[in-house]
Amino acid sequence: MKKDVLRDAIKQAKKSVKIGHILTKEEAIKESLELMDRAKICMLSTNGADGFPGIKALLNVKHDGYKKVWFSTNTSSNRVQRLKQDNRASVYYVDENTYQGLLLTGTVEILQDIKSRKMLWTDGAEIYYPKGVNDPDYSVLCFTAKKCNYYHAGIVTFDIE
Amino acid sequence: MKKDVLRDAIKQAKKSVKIGHILTKEEAIKESLELMDRAKICMLSTNGADGFPGIKALLNVKHDGYKKVWFSTNTSSNRVQRLKQDNRASVYYVDENTYQGLLLTGTVEILQDIKSRKMLWTDGAEIYYPKGVNDPDYSVLCFTAKKCNYYHAGIVTFDIE
Repeated sequence: MKKDVLRDAIKQAKKSVKIGHILTKEEAIKESLELMDRAKICMLSTNGADGFPGIKALLNVKHDGYKKVWFSTNTSSNRVQRLKQDNRASVYYVDENTYQGLLLTGTVEILQDIKSRKMLWTDGAEIYYPKGVNDPDYSVLCFTAKKCNYYHAGIVTFDIE
Repeated sequence: MKKDVLRDAIKQAKKSVKIGHILTKEEAIKESLELMDRAKICMLSTNGADGFPGIKALLNVKHDGYKKVWFSTNTSSNRVQRLKQDNRASVYYVDENTYQGLLLTGTVEILQDIKSRKMLWTDGAEIYYPKGVNDPDYSVLCFTAKKCNYYHAGIVTFDIE
């Protein structure tokens, strides 16, 4: 049992209770965007073919506010094959030091047009896609959020307008 | 577009390709357990009532190898209510610096017996469960893994024996 992990969380929770401030929707949106901006990775969850949900960390390289998030991935991956059958997904951002979490729920579109490919391409990406920017095994996932849940000593839920 | 995030990942991927070592199952298990031991948090994914998968970070306080993971949570939370209907879940550990990831797929049991409660209790946990160790709003989630996928410059999948 890792008591230090629990103790640290309790310490921070106590601070929040002491401050006693309930986040407004505007504050939650501001904190959500800051969390998204500084995150190196985020988690993508999809519905598995066997009925079990799956999770995979992906590089957090591009987003448009909290409404759109783009990822680059291998077309041949299980994830892409699954998303072709069922495009419902969630994207999760977390800061393990501040205990802030952001859950975006929505759908994923699989893109292979040249504009999307070039948008996420960078020198050296051939390590993942040996045939370059036009590699058929290179796909861009475009996630569109429908709902946001922001967690920071409480929950603020907001729909996408 | 955060090119620095992508560049760092490419740099590490190139190193792995250069080394060219394919992980054995034994090495994957060893690295998985090390990842679980040092993680402060992990992600729990569940099937949402609306058909969308959900994710939530939870404190990584106790596990028995890669077969069992325990979490403490509020009985009244949406997550617990959902798990009562559908206990299929996955637990994900990630190290954003080394790009190691571990996906455990399995099921969750909701426990409220005193032994389980005491096992995860620590001084100060009243901040989450004001009525103490017997608070009806305090539940212990026991996740049992059926399958493991370990990612580190490639994938190693192993079933639970």
